[in-house]
Amino acid sequence: MTHFPSTGRSRMRRIPQRASYDAGSIYPIIDEALICHVGFAIDGQPFVIPTIHARMGDTLALHGAKASRLLKHAAAGAPLCITMTLVDGLVLARSVFHHSMNYRSAVVFGRGRLAASDEEKWAALKAITEHVMPGRWADARQPNAQEMNATHAILVDIEEATAKVRNGPPSDDEEDYALPVWAGVLPSSVAFARPVNDQRLGEGISAPEYVETYWRARR
Amino acid sequence: MTHFPSTGRSRMRRIPQRASYDAGSIYPIIDEALICHVGFAIDGQPFVIPTIHARMGDTLALHGAKASRLLKHAAAGAPLCITMTLVDGLVLARSVFHHSMNYRSAVVFGRGRLAASDEEKWAALKAITEHVMPGRWADARQPNAQEMNATHAILVDIEEATAKVRNGPPSDDEEDYALPVWAGVLPSSVAFARPVNDQRLGEGISAPEYVETYWRARR
Repeated sequence: MTHFPSTGRSRMRRIPQRASYDAGSIYPIIDEALICHVGFAIDGQPFVIPTIHARMGDTLALHGAKASRLLKHAAAGAPLCITMTLVDGLVLARSVFHHSMNYRSAVVFGRGRLAASDEEKWAALKAITEHVMPGRWADARQPNAQEMNATHAILVDIEEATAKVRNGPPSDDEEDYALPVWAGVLPSSVAFARPVNDQRLGEGISAPEYVETYWRARR
Repeated sequence: MTHFPSTGRSRMRRIPQRASYDAGSIYPIIDEALICHVGFAIDGQPFVIPTIHARMGDTLALHGAKASRLLKHAAAGAPLCITMTLVDGLVLARSVFHHSMNYRSAVVFGRGRLAASDEEKWAALKAITEHVMPGRWADARQPNAQEMNATHAILVDIEEATAKVRNGPPSDDEEDYALPVWAGVLPSSVAFARPVNDQRLGEGISAPEYVETYWRARR
């Protein structure tokens, strides 16, 4: 599997033992994350915009309205940084200093380009829909020509990427273990409640299996 | 309450009816979000790093090790974009095109500066600790001189900020309501499980009330 280069841009300086440059560590984080935060810079001014994504092999797909600033900028080939973060728990140490979080994050560097054909755009939109809700593409009404025309699909070939992971219990200074302070982890995850039917739902239509059993795959 | 200016940098072009520039809309999102994503640019290359934050009035506090690239860069006064995103649900329309998410996001623009004094640094570290876990600062061992010295606290006065909110059911094209496709919302939230005791927990110490009853305030 792909091992990404560790350059000045992507090398983890802080706590390097938490870092990984292997697709085998990075891609499951990208795939589990519901959303990402896309960073771009215009004349030195950074912007960070949340959006949804999908991974297609070693490429990320983004989409949006043609009028969107993010999409226009991404389509122009500017450098992007795309970050996915999963929070797995609050780590409460005996000292404030050693408080931490359990998390898995992926940071991806690349440049955007417009989908080169209607087929590539179609594949990207399908991948994004299926990233959020596997099974949905085949079930819903698929895009018509007018909708396809109103939408940009941007593909970002992954040039460099890193994963950073922290898990496990707090790590306190040895002398602090004697303190009468509770320490441990409060586990955190994304939870989904029961589906809420649209008020105009047609008679006899109930939520499909893929909605009823929805969850985001974890390690 | 503060109403932030809407300039070319912060004005929402896409679906402006979802945007707000009022602190009364923006600050609850900042406060509920456990983490933020900080964007900065070095020679045109964007970086997006997840971290925790706290709001102190009209100022954001960040912290980290002095060796961190983010912290060094933020301390130097470079422009930052700091984004908080809360995902409230997956919105499944009858057409792929009208799929959406219910979310609340805040985008903050400002420049970082180092805490000007030990008192200001102490206040920032306390605010960040209490942002993540109210009640924890008074309970845990507070920072000593060596720990204070190893940590940067960065303050970002909020120059501009916007909130963007989507909620409610899917909005389908009128002719699509007749389709035999389930539509509705799958509500999403951050969930916390039962606290997990550290294996070296002292005898007779149990999780405090503020951990047992932890949740992130919602509107």
